[in-house]
Amino acid sequence: MPRPVTLFTGQWADLPLEVLAEKVAGWGFDGLELACWGDHFEVDKALEDDGYVAARRELLDAHGLSCAAISTHLVGQCVCDPIDERHKDILPERIWGDGDPEGVRRRAAQEVIDTGRAAKLFGVDIVNGFTGSSVWSKLYFFPPTTQADIDAGYEDFAARWTPIMDDFAEYGVRFGLEVHPTEIAYDIYTARRALDAIDNHPSFGFNFDPSHLVHQFVEPAAFVDEFADRIFHVHVKDARVQLDGRSSILSSHLDFGDPRRGWDFVSPGRGDVEWDPIIRALNRAGYHGPLSIEWEDSGMDREWGTQEALELVRSNDFAPSGVAFDAAFGDGE
Amino acid sequence: MPRPVTLFTGQWADLPLEVLAEKVAGWGFDGLELACWGDHFEVDKALEDDGYVAARRELLDAHGLSCAAISTHLVGQCVCDPIDERHKDILPERIWGDGDPEGVRRRAAQEVIDTGRAAKLFGVDIVNGFTGSSVWSKLYFFPPTTQADIDAGYEDFAARWTPIMDDFAEYGVRFGLEVHPTEIAYDIYTARRALDAIDNHPSFGFNFDPSHLVHQFVEPAAFVDEFADRIFHVHVKDARVQLDGRSSILSSHLDFGDPRRGWDFVSPGRGDVEWDPIIRALNRAGYHGPLSIEWEDSGMDREWGTQEALELVRSNDFAPSGVAFDAAFGDGE
Amino acid sequence: MPRPVTLFTGQWADLPLEVLAEKVAGWGFDGLELACWGDHFEVDKALEDDGYVAARRELLDAHGLSCAAISTHLVGQCVCDPIDERHKDILPERIWGDGDPEGVRRRAAQEVIDTGRAAKLFGVDIVNGFTGSSVWSKLYFFPPTTQADIDAGYEDFAARWTPIMDDFAEYGVRFGLEVHPTEIAYDIYTARRALDAIDNHPSFGFNFDPSHLVHQFVEPAAFVDEFADRIFHVHVKDARVQLDGRSSILSSHLDFGDPRRGWDFVSPGRGDVEWDPIIRALNRAGYHGPLSIEWEDSGMDREWGTQEALELVRSNDFAPSGVAFDAAFGDGE
Amino acid sequence: MPRPVTLFTGQWADLPLEVLAEKVAGWGFDGLELACWGDHFEVDKALEDDGYVAARRELLDAHGLSCAAISTHLVGQCVCDPIDERHKDILPERIWGDGDPEGVRRRAAQEVIDTGRAAKLFGVDIVNGFTGSSVWSKLYFFPPTTQADIDAGYEDFAARWTPIMDDFAEYGVRFGLEVHPTEIAYDIYTARRALDAIDNHPSFGFNFDPSHLVHQFVEPAAFVDEFADRIFHVHVKDARVQLDGRSSILSSHLDFGDPRRGWDFVSPGRGDVEWDPIIRALNRAGYHGPLSIEWEDSGMDREWGTQEALELVRSNDFAPSGVAFDAAFGDGE
Amino acid sequence: MPRPVTLFTGQWADLPLEVLAEKVAGWGFDGLELACWGDHFEVDKALEDDGYVAARRELLDAHGLSCAAISTHLVGQCVCDPIDERHKDILPERIWGDGDPEGVRRRAAQEVIDTGRAAKLFGVDIVNGFTGSSVWSKLYFFPPTTQADIDAGYEDFAARWTPIMDDFAEYGVRFGLEVHPTEIAYDIYTARRALDAIDNHPSFGFNFDPSHLVHQFVEPAAFVDEFADRIFHVHVKDARVQLDGRSSILSSHLDFGDPRRGWDFVSPGRGDVEWDPIIRALNRAGYHGPLSIEWEDSGMDREWGTQEALELVRSNDFAPSGVAFDAAFGDGE
Amino acid sequence: MPRPVTLFTGQWADLPLEVLAEKVAGWGFDGLELACWGDHFEVDKALEDDGYVAARRELLDAHGLSCAAISTHLVGQCVCDPIDERHKDILPERIWGDGDPEGVRRRAAQEVIDTGRAAKLFGVDIVNGFTGSSVWSKLYFFPPTTQADIDAGYEDFAARWTPIMDDFAEYGVRFGLEVHPTEIAYDIYTARRALDAIDNHPSFGFNFDPSHLVHQFVEPAAFVDEFADRIFHVHVKDARVQLDGRSSILSSHLDFGDPRRGWDFVSPGRGDVEWDPIIRALNRAGYHGPLSIEWEDSGMDREWGTQEALELVRSNDFAPSGVAFDAAFGDGE
Repeated sequence: MPRPVTLFTGQWADLPLEVLAEKVAGWGFDGLELACWGDHFEVDKALEDDGYVAARRELLDAHGLSCAAISTHLVGQCVCDPIDERHKDILPERIWGDGDPEGVRRRAAQEVIDTGRAAKLFGVDIVNGFTGSSVWSKLYFFPPTTQADIDAGYEDFAARWTPIMDDFAEYGVRFGLEVHPTEIAYDIYTARRALDAIDNHPSFGFNFDPSHLVHQFVEPAAFVDEFADRIFHVHVKDARVQLDGRSSILSSHLDFGDPRRGWDFVSPGRGDVEWDPIIRALNRAGYHGPLSIEWEDSGMDREWGTQEALELVRSNDFAPSGVAFDAAFGDGE
Repeated sequence: MPRPVTLFTGQWADLPLEVLAEKVAGWGFDGLELACWGDHFEVDKALEDDGYVAARRELLDAHGLSCAAISTHLVGQCVCDPIDERHKDILPERIWGDGDPEGVRRRAAQEVIDTGRAAKLFGVDIVNGFTGSSVWSKLYFFPPTTQADIDAGYEDFAARWTPIMDDFAEYGVRFGLEVHPTEIAYDIYTARRALDAIDNHPSFGFNFDPSHLVHQFVEPAAFVDEFADRIFHVHVKDARVQLDGRSSILSSHLDFGDPRRGWDFVSPGRGDVEWDPIIRALNRAGYHGPLSIEWEDSGMDREWGTQEALELVRSNDFAPSGVAFDAAFGDGE
Repeated sequence: MPRPVTLFTGQWADLPLEVLAEKVAGWGFDGLELACWGDHFEVDKALEDDGYVAARRELLDAHGLSCAAISTHLVGQCVCDPIDERHKDILPERIWGDGDPEGVRRRAAQEVIDTGRAAKLFGVDIVNGFTGSSVWSKLYFFPPTTQADIDAGYEDFAARWTPIMDDFAEYGVRFGLEVHPTEIAYDIYTARRALDAIDNHPSFGFNFDPSHLVHQFVEPAAFVDEFADRIFHVHVKDARVQLDGRSSILSSHLDFGDPRRGWDFVSPGRGDVEWDPIIRALNRAGYHGPLSIEWEDSGMDREWGTQEALELVRSNDFAPSGVAFDAAFGDGE
Repeated sequence: MPRPVTLFTGQWADLPLEVLAEKVAGWGFDGLELACWGDHFEVDKALEDDGYVAARRELLDAHGLSCAAISTHLVGQCVCDPIDERHKDILPERIWGDGDPEGVRRRAAQEVIDTGRAAKLFGVDIVNGFTGSSVWSKLYFFPPTTQADIDAGYEDFAARWTPIMDDFAEYGVRFGLEVHPTEIAYDIYTARRALDAIDNHPSFGFNFDPSHLVHQFVEPAAFVDEFADRIFHVHVKDARVQLDGRSSILSSHLDFGDPRRGWDFVSPGRGDVEWDPIIRALNRAGYHGPLSIEWEDSGMDREWGTQEALELVRSNDFAPSGVAFDAAFGDGE
Repeated sequence: MPRPVTLFTGQWADLPLEVLAEKVAGWGFDGLELACWGDHFEVDKALEDDGYVAARRELLDAHGLSCAAISTHLVGQCVCDPIDERHKDILPERIWGDGDPEGVRRRAAQEVIDTGRAAKLFGVDIVNGFTGSSVWSKLYFFPPTTQADIDAGYEDFAARWTPIMDDFAEYGVRFGLEVHPTEIAYDIYTARRALDAIDNHPSFGFNFDPSHLVHQFVEPAAFVDEFADRIFHVHVKDARVQLDGRSSILSSHLDFGDPRRGWDFVSPGRGDVEWDPIIRALNRAGYHGPLSIEWEDSGMDREWGTQEALELVRSNDFAPSGVAFDAAFGDGE
Repeated sequence: MPRPVTLFTGQWADLPLEVLAEKVAGWGFDGLELACWGDHFEVDKALEDDGYVAARRELLDAHGLSCAAISTHLVGQCVCDPIDERHKDILPERIWGDGDPEGVRRRAAQEVIDTGRAAKLFGVDIVNGFTGSSVWSKLYFFPPTTQADIDAGYEDFAARWTPIMDDFAEYGVRFGLEVHPTEIAYDIYTARRALDAIDNHPSFGFNFDPSHLVHQFVEPAAFVDEFADRIFHVHVKDARVQLDGRSSILSSHLDFGDPRRGWDFVSPGRGDVEWDPIIRALNRAGYHGPLSIEWEDSGMDREWGTQEALELVRSNDFAPSGVAFDAAFGDGE
């Protein structure tokens, strides 16, 4: 029984959902993971307008598309981040408000809670997103940074997210952090530290996305094995290390898509992510949810690439085996 | 003229041949390599029952399936092995008998001879299988092991298999040893030693299977080039080295399918075997026989994988070229 | 808008163009890059016979095939080379004449000019080819070779090719040197030196072919980036390094196709050329011309391989993106 | 004529200079690169107290130690950085003052100017150090970061450092930025961008330290070749990438010395820095200044390691050749 | 405080201890790890003859040599092994007796107990050695082998070694198993399984020897980190993987020293063992015991090599650091 | 018994032998391999002047230096080469004469014969050198080159060198071809072809020099194993591949020493040659002659480097072992 293949709509926010849904259904997708930006899934409307979620659902149904998760990366980012002008561009005005950092963070936290509530109304029990981090920028440890400095960041995270997760628990909704540089967790050790900080809150887990691990040289399947029971959702996205002796893995303050960068995102199948070991790890973990393509490649036409990616997923989503070999071999009679 | 693609039935012994043949024909295979266990090809019935081989042939014909080889790995294993309880599980009762090791080995040797005779009746001139080995377990050379100790093992092999090969020669049937750890030959040097021991008996050659070589880091195409005139049959099977600094290439007494192993079998195309150089080597060797998929992957649904493997073989089984390039280029007028 | 995929006819000179065109059209190609040998594109007839080019064009049109370039590798080679008996085999008698080296070189130079003129008549503005080199054979620098010795070779090249390029400029035709060992340019540094020598003549650029770079361990995409505005045409051809500790990258005076060579040409997709970075580089360079398959593999049936190659190109020729990601992500409202 | 080998005193600030000088001279060093912290080189005293620099010089002379550079990494860091509590720990109280960020930055800038002046008094014409950066923390480009955001950081750097460099020029002193993550330049591309921003100010160059490049996978010798005329000083320091599939190149918020980090500093010769190509590049660049060991290894006794490092440098600091080989070979008579 | 460097005498059993001790002291070693074969340390004499251990100790003292461990690899091997003729060659007659396997195993077990007692008399609290294994030869898992089969082997090990370890505990002596193919533990996972089987008996730990891990591609430092409190003793020995496409990692039934093997033992420093990470791991583990060179290289003069190895160890046995760097850097005042 | 370490004087022809001998003896060398250019060993004088060889020998004796081989690379090169102006620079006038190619080749051949005679007079039985090749420049096989073309080159070599070797045999002197690009043999396969061509003449063998193999990616130890009985002399020289994606292994018509080349010669120990496997192979081959340092590194002071190289050789020239390990281990009683 193959997993549903969905498209994360975050990179298609320039298209109205109606347009996008028709395209995506035509390409053969099973569903969508709706972004809470553009007009794809509007939390305020979902909570205010009685007919909104039903209409959204009808639109999807009309194209035979399921929806198993909604995503709140942009607002989530603002819950723990030191706030600067860049955050203004990723927030609705009602959350940015006067831009006072602590106020922004609190309004963002409330919006994430509301997103959980809206998800429940919509019949979806996974919300994916970012958390932000007050200590990400201290990653190099110079000026000298102590573990106490870092611990403070994890405590801040726990203080802000535990109440959110409590509300989520109440709604029966879970939150999948997309482990990612700039977030409170960006690899295996920081993911463990985040879980410890939040006391392994049952509502808190991961939206596994290998593209953020391979450029750090972390083995994605090891992440799945380590957190098997916390894999709440899966992104299919790819990245490629393109070091040549002059490029830097820290990317030299160059834009995505600049060929001088040491790594970049590429269309699934064209990067360093090996999907076979990931599928095996997901099978071991008992993950049966969607494989959700998050398509991002600054050097390729997105419609061409998205269709290629769908084909890739279909040809790799194999079920595990029940047979023990060489044992079957031993069937002497 | 592409080679026939067959399926080795050894890993499907839980299915009656009738069921299996229908499936396999439906997937587009050209034929089967029948295992002499399960109900696929029963040597005793073939020799005792006048109609058996004709019925087997009819069953295959009904599905448009050919058969170019039968396989006797389990019985063959018992010809040279030190016998222990594990062998009981891979033998019919009539061969195990009272389990006295030398008796088991002799009955197994006779059964291999009978298998050659049955093959001939069935119209097949290749029998694939294992040989067992009295010295395999001495591979590490500690406690201190001398070349005399090893030579004794090869002499034992020659003493037991020469008579079998003589009978095969009489039937016009050849035996293809699947070079494999636990056998008298498991790599290039031991294959040469086995051939030397048996005095290059014309009936004795190899069922080439690259999956047993790649985890030893032996280059499969080099094996084909080395023994070009002894490649009697070919298995399409794959294996993957999955070392991570903690896993061992000796596999830590862990079951196939355990992700902590240093290597494992995987579905063809998903492992370390490179098929292109093998096809070129087979072309150089003039091998025109079947490419027989032996499907074994503890982490994948076997029906899904077998069909993928068939597609892999079809897209790699290219014919050699008669054109000499750059020479053709020189066609100045 | 995908690029046209064409077949370079040089390796098919044993087939009359009529036969070849029918085959190629049947396989789904968009066009042909005609070789000036065999009967594919005959420069002398094109210039002498009023109806020749029209007939050639009709033949192509009848099969729905375009032609964007013609190729004069063999004659071009003789413009700068020290001439020996091997050149006789690649030249028409009228150019070889009495075989006096300087005479051969001059007649070859004139033929290249004529080829440019014929191209223009045929409505094609790219002529691909080789240049030969008087210094290629000095590549190892022993006996001791000075930069003055090498400079003399580049001056000889400039002296012989500048007049040809001037005439090409007049016709509005450009020449694409296929950078290749044995030519005046065979890698990035020699290509730069050749351009410098010929004073960056606007008619002189490159027929980019990565197969000649990968066995030198030159990164093909770096070549495209370096000479972005000089990529006049593109060959899709592949090569594979097959070093094993005994083979030499200098190929041991062994024929193409000999498995003991340290590298060899192989069918596109089966070698060391990575097409994805090349397509990205071509996209950056704004190259919209044909992707022309030059098919050469001494170990594979050419018809089988050519069709596989076409499929490879189709599945890799993606358009660039106009979207800036993570920016689109920032579309907060 | 080998280069002087000096020890950078920054990691020995716990020892009074007198104690350190005696040790270092005993180990066989040629000189010291004095840190402007601890009691090694106190800028305020140098400017206020007439006898200070003479006494410092006498102390060095007494041990036969030269000094070619002083270093102001800590204060320099505060010139462009966003200031937080961590900066308080690396600054004298008189610079920290009330901790108002802009005030701290301005006082730090003035201190760097004063350091240049003190260097001149001390007879040293190289000041090494850090610059800080207002944009380092934006390295990942999420939340979406534009080139305009980054440009602003480089403009800020130019605005703050141009006046400092102007004063340095007046004193005849040059500033060597140690290219390093957390600084305005941390690799080749950002070093170029910094030079462009500051209009290639003649007083601004680099204190080349390969240990900060290898964990970014930047080839150190390429840096030297790129900025040959801007290599003002050289650090001998080493780092090792220790990826294992679970560790991250971004180091997981773990302390230096934690074996789970993806990379760490190690004693020279025990890491990924290859000294031979660097010495060749320095020879090509005509750099004749000190090779200054900056010793940092959280897993090794520093006195043991420093002596090993000195031996490493001595055995690698070879002079270039004037002989052209194979040419000398050609001396036939 | 560097660790003592000792020589394991096992490969020098052809020399009387007196001769060997003089040599070894002359080379500058600190001590010996005495083998219980040759005349080096004779367990029966130690227990029977009151003056034996004192005389042995005097002999060592006379050369200024310490002894921190004795080794009983050969007898230990026979405790769990299936016994064959090869074991006769490694045992004293009194233990071999009539060669009945179970009798041999029991007498060997008693001899190990006696060795512990003799060690105590000699004033040594570490006995190193092998355990043998009843399941090693089942490593490939064909004929089909179940985890129950393997479990039986570990139970057999526990049954035979628990009483030995109980006696050792009484004597205050610990046993260091040299993890090694052919033993109950040969890598990280089997070492864990052995510890589990023997219920983490406090007398049972490891004689860490990286040469047996690198040819399995197990990272030696990971072993030390995993079993930090069970590293009772350390061997300095090296091995090299020498794969070339024809050689097998399983070594093809070829003698040590045969260049066709896929791996072999080589003199320390000439193989794949990296000593720097091991020293760091031993420092982390708090191991302060001897670094005992076990010298074995079939291609090198042993006296030449042993002296080179001693120099290698001396130049790598560094102490850990107490300093936290970049923190020291932060000493702003 | 270590091998003598000698210095090949070819790269020191600018120094009179007297000066050089004093230097080299002072550095601790055992002897010299004299070049037949500069004033080191003058063949004409040796044959004409009765006292010449005695005086040369006295000069060496005075410095305690042996001489086991003389070298005639430059003249040897001209025996088979197509002759051009570059050869004039490497030949004495009396051999160049009027420069007519065939005349040059014949006079060069006679000079090699004379060199053998002079060697005998001097008491040396090895002459090293080059052979030249009429087909080297055809290495790429374009224009299309047939095996017949290449065969002609080997026949030319045999025709020219067989008479020379016959004379050598008479003198009891052997010729060691330094396998090298530009020669009739430049790798394993061409060395075999040369031996076949010259009918395995007993006087013809090799001056093994790994530096010419590693940049071709040929494993030097494999060469020694292949031609064990033809290793007449050994050069210690090193080369380094320095590919970076832009450089070419064919070296781009760039001078030695240019950092843009894909490979270059470097001081022994600083390149890709691994000496340990070579010493083992020489030990297997029973080679007891000199290890002769041919020092060439365009980026290093030659006196500094030569002394480092001597130390490298001394620390690697180990004798083989007579002991069979694990067997010694088995000394149970």
